[in-house]
Formats: sequence, C-alpha cells, structure tokens
Amino acid sequence: MDKNLTESNNFEPYKDHFLYKILNPKSLAIFGANNNLLTTMGSMQLRNIIAGGGFNGNIYPVHPRLDEVQGYKAYKSVKDLPVVPDLAFLILPTRVVPQVMEECGEKGIKNLLITSGGFREIGKDGIELSKKIDEISKKYNMRFVGPNCLGIYNGWYGFPEKKEAYFNTFWPYAIPERGNISIISQSGTIAAQTFWHAKEMGVRIGKSLSVGNERNIDMVDFLEYFKDDPQTGVIGLYIEEIKRGKEFIKLVKEITPKKPIVAIYTGGTKAADRAIKSHTGSLGGNQKIYDAVFKDAGIISTNSISDFLYYLRTLSFAQKYNIFMKGNRVGIITDSGGSGSMMTKSSELYGLEVPEFSKQLKGELSELIPFTASANNPIDVTFDVNFLNIFYKFPKMLMKSGEVDSIIIWGVFDFDDVIETIENSGMVVDENVRNMGLMLDRAIIKPIMRLMKKYSVPVYFSGPFPYRFSWFQKFLSYDIPIFDLWDAPPKCLKILYEYSEYRKRHQ
Amino acid sequence: MDKNLTESNNFEPYKDHFLYKILNPKSLAIFGANNNLLTTMGSMQLRNIIAGGGFNGNIYPVHPRLDEVQGYKAYKSVKDLPVVPDLAFLILPTRVVPQVMEECGEKGIKNLLITSGGFREIGKDGIELSKKIDEISKKYNMRFVGPNCLGIYNGWYGFPEKKEAYFNTFWPYAIPERGNISIISQSGTIAAQTFWHAKEMGVRIGKSLSVGNERNIDMVDFLEYFKDDPQTGVIGLYIEEIKRGKEFIKLVKEITPKKPIVAIYTGGTKAADRAIKSHTGSLGGNQKIYDAVFKDAGIISTNSISDFLYYLRTLSFAQKYNIFMKGNRVGIITDSGGSGSMMTKSSELYGLEVPEFSKQLKGELSELIPFTASANNPIDVTFDVNFLNIFYKFPKMLMKSGEVDSIIIWGVFDFDDVIETIENSGMVVDENVRNMGLMLDRAIIKPIMRLMKKYSVPVYFSGPFPYRFSWFQKFLSYDIPIFDLWDAPPKCLKILYEYSEYRKRHQ
Repeated sequence: MDKNLTESNNFEPYKDHFLYKILNPKSLAIFGANNNLLTTMGSMQLRNIIAGGGFNGNIYPVHPRLDEVQGYKAYKSVKDLPVVPDLAFLILPTRVVPQVMEECGEKGIKNLLITSGGFREIGKDGIELSKKIDEISKKYNMRFVGPNCLGIYNGWYGFPEKKEAYFNTFWPYAIPERGNISIISQSGTIAAQTFWHAKEMGVRIGKSLSVGNERNIDMVDFLEYFKDDPQTGVIGLYIEEIKRGKEFIKLVKEITPKKPIVAIYTGGTKAADRAIKSHTGSLGGNQKIYDAVFKDAGIISTNSISDFLYYLRTLSFAQKYNIFMKGNRVGIITDSGGSGSMMTKSSELYGLEVPEFSKQLKGELSELIPFTASANNPIDVTFDVNFLNIFYKFPKMLMKSGEVDSIIIWGVFDFDDVIETIENSGMVVDENVRNMGLMLDRAIIKPIMRLMKKYSVPVYFSGPFPYRFSWFQKFLSYDIPIFDLWDAPPKCLKILYEYSEYRKRHQ
Repeated sequence: MDKNLTESNNFEPYKDHFLYKILNPKSLAIFGANNNLLTTMGSMQLRNIIAGGGFNGNIYPVHPRLDEVQGYKAYKSVKDLPVVPDLAFLILPTRVVPQVMEECGEKGIKNLLITSGGFREIGKDGIELSKKIDEISKKYNMRFVGPNCLGIYNGWYGFPEKKEAYFNTFWPYAIPERGNISIISQSGTIAAQTFWHAKEMGVRIGKSLSVGNERNIDMVDFLEYFKDDPQTGVIGLYIEEIKRGKEFIKLVKEITPKKPIVAIYTGGTKAADRAIKSHTGSLGGNQKIYDAVFKDAGIISTNSISDFLYYLRTLSFAQKYNIFMKGNRVGIITDSGGSGSMMTKSSELYGLEVPEFSKQLKGELSELIPFTASANNPIDVTFDVNFLNIFYKFPKMLMKSGEVDSIIIWGVFDFDDVIETIENSGMVVDENVRNMGLMLDRAIIKPIMRLMKKYSVPVYFSGPFPYRFSWFQKFLSYDIPIFDLWDAPPKCLKILYEYSEYRKRHQ
C-alpha cells in the first residue's frame, strides 16, 4: 500500500454512476471459464481475478457441463444463479454471445463485460452481430464494455470499505502499487501488459480499462466518470479512433485544467490505419486533425509507450503533492561530468533553461566541494561522495536561492549492491557506508520531500542502475521520482513545465 | 562466455601497437591505493581490478608507508619494484603526479594511466601542470592515458592465451558479456556506469576506455588501434571535443564502411558548452559543424544514452553475423493489436515501409490463424498462443516470400514467470506450457538464427517484460535481439537500414 496516500474521510466514490458497479462488482457471473488454464482465454481471466487474492466479491462461474470451476461452484445456466450479479463477464465463442446476453437480460443483469472478439473488426458478418447485441442490450436496458476487450483492472475495488482489495481480469498478477493514474485504452495490451514495467518504475496505476470496440460504453463514458472520481488525478488514453468527437473535446477541455491527460494516437499513417482497422475496426484519421484536437484540448501526446508511462508517472507525483513548476529553469547536480553535460544539453534542446548561478550562490557552493569540482550549473562535484551534500544540502541551497524551478540530481548508487559487492570481494564494509542505507529515508528522502512541497520545486533523482535495484525501489516507495538513466529526467521536466503553464493559464 | 563467438585460429592481436600493452598489461604498478575502501579513489580502483578475478597479471602497489595493500606486497618506491611493469596506474593527489611520473620514467616504465584530476579542466594552474607532465613524458618517451579519467575495461585481456580474463579499473564488477563493441569516451560515466544496463540488455562491450583530458593518447590513437583490431566490430564514441579534427575525419571515413561508429556529442548548446568546459576543459563547438562532420564521415549520432546502447547492440549483432538489411521493408507479427499499430506507425514515421502482403502470402497465412485474426501486415494473431507459428513459421514464410527485409515480433512472454505465477496460485501447470521453456532453444532460437543468416533478414523479438526476466536473458544469450517494449525495435531497424545502405554505397 501507498505509504503517503491521503485518504480523505469525506470520500465520495460516485456510487450512483452506472460505471461504479462495473468497476466494483460485489458479485460476478463468469461465462467461458473452465479448468484448463492457458488453453482457454476465459479460464485465464477467471484465474487472473482469483490470483493474488485481491477480489473478495462473490464469483459465479456458469458452465453447461462442469459442477466446479477453479474451486467455485458452477451453474449450468445463468437462470440458476442464487443472486442477480452486479456484472456478467463473457469470454465465449462469438456466436453464442447474443444468446447468453438474452439470458442475462432475462435474469435482470444490467452490466456486462464482453471479451469475445469477432465483431466489427472482422468485417460484414461481425457488423451484423454487433447490431444484434446492440438490440439485446437496448431491450433489457443493459450496458456493456467491449466486445473485443481484455477487461478491467481496478486497484481501488470497493474502496474505502475494502482497503486492500482489487479487481483484476488482466494477466499480470504482479500489479503496480495503486495510485491516481487511470487508463482508458482501445488496446488490451496497453491497458494490461504495461504492468510489469509500471510496477518496476513506480507508475502508480489505480485503474486501467480495456474498452475494445466500444460498442456500448466508450472512452467518453469513462472520462465522465474519471472527471469527478477522487481516485483519479491523471488520465492515460490509448486511441485508435475517437467515436463521439464533440463530446470528447468538450469533456476533455473541462478535465485537463484539473487533471492532465496523456494520449497515444496510433492512426494517421498508411499501414497504421490498416492495422487499427483489423484491430478494433476503427477508421484512423489524419494525424494533423488529431494533433490539432489534442493541442486545443490540452492533451499531452506521444507515440512512445515508455514516454507514456514516464509522463503519467511525472504528472501523478505532481498532482498528488501539488508540486508544479513556476518557470522553466533547471538546476543540475551531478557527480559525473558526462551525464551532467548530456542532461544539460537535453534540457536546452527541450526548451528548458539551465541558468548560470549568481555569484553569491556559486560562492556558497564552492565552499562545500573539492577544488577540481564546478560550482556553476551544472554543479559537478566529480568524485566527491558526500551524499548528504549532493542529495539534500545542495538542492536546499538551490531552492532557497530562488534561481531554479526544478532540480535533477545524477549519482544515486544502490548502496545495498555496493555493500554486497564489497563483501563478496572479501573486504570489510566501512561503517559509514553501511549507515548510508540506513539513514536514507531519515536524512534524505523525507526531508527532500518536505522541501519539494515547501518550494514547489520538483527534484528528480537519477543513477546508473535498472529500477529493480533496492535503492531505486526505496525512493519510489516514498514517491520520490527517480530515473534509471539520464535520458528521461529532462524530457519529463519539459512535460511537467508545459502542463504547469497550461494549468496556470486555465485557472 | 559468448557461446557463438567465432574465434579464428590465425588471430592477430596487434601486439606490436603501442596501445596493446596498455590494454593488456602483464604487470601493473598502482599508486594511490591503500586499504580504506570507498574513501580513497585509488583503493576503489585497485579493488575493481582484483574483484571478479578477471585480472591474472601481476600487481605491484606502491605506497610510502604500507607493507601490504589489499593483500598484495606493497613497495615504498617504484625503484624497489622487482620488474619494470607494463603499465603504471596513478590515482594520486594532483601535485605529486609529476614527481611520480619522473620516478616511473627513471625506472623505464613506458605506459601510464592517470586518473588524477585537477589539470586543464580547473584553469590556469592546471594548464601549467599539464605542460609539465607533457615534458616528463617526452623526456622518458612515455605515453599516457588521461589525466582526469576513470581508466580501462578490456574484456579481451590477454586473449587468446587468457580466455576468461579481463582487465577492469571501473566500478561495476557485474560486467557485460564481452563482444565486438569498443567504446572510447571522454566521460568516465559513459565508459563505466552504463555497464549495469549494458549487462541487462545484452550490449556486448568488449572494450571501454575513459580517455579523460586526452593530454597524450587521444581518441584518434584508439580509433587507429580499433580500425584493425579483430575484436572490434562496432565503435561507440562519447565526444565533448574532437582534438585532431583532420586526422579524426580521415580515419573515421576509412573505418565506417567496415565498422559502424555511433557517437554522442554533448557540446553545441550554451549551458552544455559551459558544462563540458568544467568537465574536461574542452571547448564545445557548433552543433551544425559536428552534424555535418558526422554525416560526411558516416557516423551515427544520438543525444540519448539508451539509444546509444541500443544502436551499439543493433550493429553488434549485424556485424557479428553479417545480417544487414537489403531494403526498408518491415514485416510485423503480433499477438496484440495495440502494440502492432504502434510499431507500424513508428516504423512509418522512421521512414521504413510496412508493405501490404501479396494475395498469395495472405492466403498462406490465413490458413494458420484464427478467423478473428489479420493476415495482412501487421499480422495480428490476436489471442492465439501457437508460439511456434508466431516465433518461427510466420517469420520463415515472410522470409521465403521475399516481401520483407526485416521482421519484428511482439509477444514474447517469460514462461518461467508464467509457470511460477500459475503454481503460486495453486493450479497445475499444463505439460505443453512446461515444455515451451524447454523447447525454446531447439525449436525457436537456433532455427530462427539459421534463417536470419540464410536470408539476411533480421528478426527482432519483443515482449512486455523488463530484460532481467529469464526468457529475455535466454534470447540474448544466443545473440537474438529482443526488446523489453515496442518503442525501440522500429528505431533500431531504421539505424540498421541506414547503415546497411551506407555500407553498400561504400563497398
């Protein structure tokens, strides 16, 4: 669980919105699951819901022949269920979907989640079938997500009553720590398979929705829900086609001044349009039109999945702690000239300023660094290993000076790894080194978080280790942005700066 | 050790070149090391050489007071050494460097590696000192790397006599598997601290040199050596300033048609020029001039450290197996529409073509995929999990058709992780699933490598896991390019295509 999460007492989960029950079903009927894992999609998805123990609602498998499915009592037909479940989850061969929908309607079920593919995306026959399920849903006043989708992840399932619960139909059982990021995706992969990376790099996804063909419930519906959802602070969109253009633009314009939106649009080139047509049956549109819409509505756009995750993480921290940039100036602190030069150049190429420090600030800094080091911006301490200076005192001095609006620090090593390699090489570990790890939270992480909030100056740490290393995970567990190399910090600051300006203009 | 490495019998390691002994010292005197790890730079660097057990030459610590340094007999003065060592490694306070150089000269030592900083980069006093060490080196006919550098990594130390040995003055003991990549860097961090990532993503670095201020031995010297070095197939450069411009350009033009060069140049913007001046004392130059030089000389240029590593890896595989692209056409095979669309769009944005397949090829593919899937380019098999098709049969069909020049495959899962999570959730693992992992090398990896070589069509695999996962490591251990998300494959193919064309034009 998120250590710093502010859980307000007067929390309002919008339980009256029709999407609430879809995201938080207390009872679930599942069609298409059996006991053969990994050969049947439905079996996998039931397993996903069960695995990890996040879901503590009631599960009712429906199967024409089996008495038990994955440990749950199975029912021959939806008619036999002892309750009317909040949600029916259909992972069935395409042709039987309409029949099962009819039965669900008769039972009184109002919400469906349809994974089955073979609708609009396959052409004429599929379009016929799509119209059929439209009719059935109208007849019984049912709403449904899909078809041709992977389902739902809700890390806030049943919150606040159920504090540690989640509802997850996706594959990765290793889910990221929940946070204020909500994703709506016309691709199941972007909704689900990004979880391994998200978990490792500390992208706090709270909700992620694979909306498939959007035959009934679409992106605009979910955007409406997320607009007022207190669990949502940042929204990520994966778009192949915007279906209700006017509603989309109007709604997004209301949202972006308060909650930033990051979007991927994959249409707009020849073969890409062909690809998305066969994927969800969408018709890609001219890139320039999408670019104009995104710009007008304040949407942050990217073609890269890593940038998508990085931008979401960047804005998630900013929203959660209300740390935005007041200007475009960056202060860079490094123990390595090369990474310092590269971050400086990148910052400038991204339109940020790396200002020369005032004489006074340079003088103050000079007193604390070796004679071979540089007290100008970037501050290059060379081989000095006084981490308290680099990680805390210097950032504090920069903030106090008022000469920068953001700070990047290069030089976080994983001291657990350092200690381990020293011990493995047969040497005795210095007590100072051993204490570094122990004092990390007390002497660096917590005080720097206080400073960031006080001055509204984001501090981005970075170092040469992949995210999985323990010090990197420690920074992330306290919501301190850390980066596994020096490419991303300037890029993320650019995004944060631009959003900070947009937000200011629209207040 | 690299499984597929071709080790020719008539191997010629250029033992006569003056740099050979610096890269492969049989004996080493070290100045500035004591027994206090992590407080003394020199102690750390001696530890680096010892740790991992890669270095099996003789080590002679020189220390005015100690009898033993890190387990080695120490000598009061270089005069007392029982041999004239191949290399003297100086990690001393700046002011004593000239005196020790004199003593080394008197002893007859011809090669030095000087880590100490405080020379040109600090201004006037440092320039005086630089001139002094120039004089001493001339007087004794000595050559030296540095000052103000981190040293040397040579994964081919003593090869071929010493098959498993390496010489490493850098921090990361966890060094990447050696390969045909040689790096020359004016930044120690780029030379050394990229090792954690390089190891994880399978960037096969064979040699990496931190050349510091290049007071005596410079980039051009090392380029000359690498030009004919059979252990070098690809060269990476980190540049703050090119010192011998004409020689550099002439030499590079000779090299690039045979061995690709990837370079980072960090000067050219206002604050970046300031940064590099304080780093190595270099004067940054106009970006346009560097761009023109790079283009003219066939250098592949980037401002991103991840791209740098990716491009080196890309070209390393291509060089080792002689797999270059004959045209710019990409075939994409995916089990996910979203990642397929994104890779398609990126490929097109990078100037690659994602051609529609011929009727015949579409027909052949259609027979092997579900009716919901797409047999056009990208081939989207949706939720089909016939990995033999996706990973082997389809690529083979594409290669045979002659309709593509490269292939990207999305959908590599880590089956060890899959099996583990299934078992952890209390279910029985299907035998087919268990066998997937066992048959990976025999049924997929080895045959696909044969096909790649036969058709000269590179196949890039990708999937949603970070590199550390075991299946990803398995692909990499066999030199099969694999990617941890879908951003990098199109970008790397673009670089490979451009280099393939350049190579063809200059043959």
